[in-house]
Amino acid sequence: MEYLDNLGQKAVAAKYELQKLSATDKNRALQAAASALTAATDRILSANDMDYETAAAGGMTAALLDRLKLTPERIESMAEGLRQIVELEDPAGTVMESFDRPNGLHIDKVRVPMGVIGIIYEARPNVTADAFGLCFKTGNAVILKGGKDAAHSNAAIVEVIREALSLEAVTADAVQLIEDNDRVVTTAFMRLKQYVDVLIPRGGAGLIRAVVENSTVPVIETGTGNCHIFVDEDADLEQAVPIIINAKTQRIGVCNACESLLIHEKIADRLLPVLGRALQEKKVEMRGDARVQELIPEAVAATEEDYGREYLDYIISMKTVSDVEEAIAHINRYNTRHSDAILTQNMEHAERFLQGVDSACVYVNVSTRFTDGFEFGFGAEIGISTQKLHARGPMGLKELTTYKYLIRGDGQIRG
Amino acid sequence: MEYLDNLGQKAVAAKYELQKLSATDKNRALQAAASALTAATDRILSANDMDYETAAAGGMTAALLDRLKLTPERIESMAEGLRQIVELEDPAGTVMESFDRPNGLHIDKVRVPMGVIGIIYEARPNVTADAFGLCFKTGNAVILKGGKDAAHSNAAIVEVIREALSLEAVTADAVQLIEDNDRVVTTAFMRLKQYVDVLIPRGGAGLIRAVVENSTVPVIETGTGNCHIFVDEDADLEQAVPIIINAKTQRIGVCNACESLLIHEKIADRLLPVLGRALQEKKVEMRGDARVQELIPEAVAATEEDYGREYLDYIISMKTVSDVEEAIAHINRYNTRHSDAILTQNMEHAERFLQGVDSACVYVNVSTRFTDGFEFGFGAEIGISTQKLHARGPMGLKELTTYKYLIRGDGQIRG
Repeated sequence: MEYLDNLGQKAVAAKYELQKLSATDKNRALQAAASALTAATDRILSANDMDYETAAAGGMTAALLDRLKLTPERIESMAEGLRQIVELEDPAGTVMESFDRPNGLHIDKVRVPMGVIGIIYEARPNVTADAFGLCFKTGNAVILKGGKDAAHSNAAIVEVIREALSLEAVTADAVQLIEDNDRVVTTAFMRLKQYVDVLIPRGGAGLIRAVVENSTVPVIETGTGNCHIFVDEDADLEQAVPIIINAKTQRIGVCNACESLLIHEKIADRLLPVLGRALQEKKVEMRGDARVQELIPEAVAATEEDYGREYLDYIISMKTVSDVEEAIAHINRYNTRHSDAILTQNMEHAERFLQGVDSACVYVNVSTRFTDGFEFGFGAEIGISTQKLHARGPMGLKELTTYKYLIRGDGQIRG
Repeated sequence: MEYLDNLGQKAVAAKYELQKLSATDKNRALQAAASALTAATDRILSANDMDYETAAAGGMTAALLDRLKLTPERIESMAEGLRQIVELEDPAGTVMESFDRPNGLHIDKVRVPMGVIGIIYEARPNVTADAFGLCFKTGNAVILKGGKDAAHSNAAIVEVIREALSLEAVTADAVQLIEDNDRVVTTAFMRLKQYVDVLIPRGGAGLIRAVVENSTVPVIETGTGNCHIFVDEDADLEQAVPIIINAKTQRIGVCNACESLLIHEKIADRLLPVLGRALQEKKVEMRGDARVQELIPEAVAATEEDYGREYLDYIISMKTVSDVEEAIAHINRYNTRHSDAILTQNMEHAERFLQGVDSACVYVNVSTRFTDGFEFGFGAEIGISTQKLHARGPMGLKELTTYKYLIRGDGQIRG
């Protein structure tokens, strides 16, 4: 596919250019891109209007329309996002390890940019500027494939950034947008292995699955979260209710929200009536086992399928268990390796849970909502990895780099 | 596919068992497996005889037959390999980073086993014991799919190890072999995402490609090496010839052997006649550009395709270039991101080469043959990664682990 081949070649050329830029050069370019976005507010808004009108006329849901919609404040916040990235340290170039071998070889393990990063995402134009900023700061060229419902918005944003880069004498091909929205092109992009070093899908479970199924480029899976909270028999019940309410309802559509609750059978009768009222107040539909339904009149029966669901909605599944081992086994069976929490004052149970649960983030006495690059202090986030290769959990700048070994000698040959 | 489903479930059950074993337990089991292999020499040899006879009758090449063939010494060396793994430190369990957040959260980033590792390899029965040892030491369950030409040998080896584990009260499902050699099963194994955390193909370019094309499980690509040596104008020519001869001919069929040579045009007339004779002596066929053919009478013309070839044979491609930048550009175009070297006394050129060449290992004045876990001091090697996710270059025990975040708090909720 000539169109993609061309894009790929330009990205590769750009990646070598970017690797030569100093931190100062990159920061100046990021600042320039930020200012350019603010200055181009009207241009971006009118592009966004076109997308919005088409989407609204096509019956897009209110929640998705809200994600698509840009305002002067939202454009300013994109610009501000780029300025925040300026403040972060570029991890590329760091010597991670150095060692000398008996034969005199000196080996440095040095952090370097990935090279070319592909990002596939849905109709959220703010991801466009954000993904560019994170990739650029770490010296990576990026190829973006945004949702077609945001096509005009993305094109405008990328155009503005590319112009700003050119004015700073930086290669505009640091960021490229795939403007052909044919599915065939998107699938071919997932197989652009000769040019793209890593592909990061950002979006819902369907998007992630499509990328994993079709890609030959290495993929970092992100963001599906069937997160659990297990309330142990020794939990502080005063603490438990606010944590559960926070994890379930503070922001409903995010991957680190709690979707499923396990309750030790010994404290079910003390916790569930109170918790049931609190969840009821927040209009959360409860789906539980027989014991849960006994103790919470509003609860309906949970099916097997419920325990595997990421609702992203005002629904929660609930189940009583007889001990921490049963809780761990249930979680490892149904979770998405994202974030799971135990609430307990029993430190031995806490340790068993921390060790036994196979998730990127395992919490003791904390809401699962903290799985987030900013909350972890990374200062940025490109996504939450739910796989085990390369990066797990919140990914910041460091996770957009790889390493290489530099080996210096004076004539060594292998015997 | 029920057969694989069953294998996968057993591996998952085993992974949780293995994570609970102490280093002492694991080492005792490895020792037991080593002794069992030695004790079962006759049993393994007669299984290997069956494979060997079938393969020989089927016309397998001498080189492949040699890889397939087991002897008492080779079985002893497998056992010795397991004993060496006992001596290594298990990286799992190490706290990689610890940090406190302003809200009181304490976050530990802890190294943990991957979980279930899949290894797909060719008819080399020694990989069977080796892959088991490395995965087991790091607390991973492993599912092996070996080449069908080694089916009886692999089955015998795995059986012996499983018996030894059982006698040590360790789950035998720490190692499982896929005994159904139908291609459909192998392909389904590559998509066994619900059970397998990472897939590592070990073998030739064709095998790697098949795994990358078909797998939905995250893959670590290994081992294709079109490695280059660039002889700069300021190279020590006395050093250059032995390095090139070593890199090309010390072991011909390995991924870190040199396949392509770039020569600065300014020293071509001094280097090439001498080098040509040395390569000729080793019976290396030379394929070069016009200048190379002019200076080495035995050299034939190189085609474009030659520059992209991993010969794994007594053949080398050769090309003159006008400077270090041209060398870097050529290498980045044709290499496989494995290992490339510059020979130069000009440290500025060396730095440009180290920074500019996009490979796992970049060498100055050293043979490319050192890209190897043992040569790097890792004490073990599961393969050489030629991709950028997770691990690059030689992979030892550490590269068979991932990490998770353990977060402890006392009731924190997100505002």
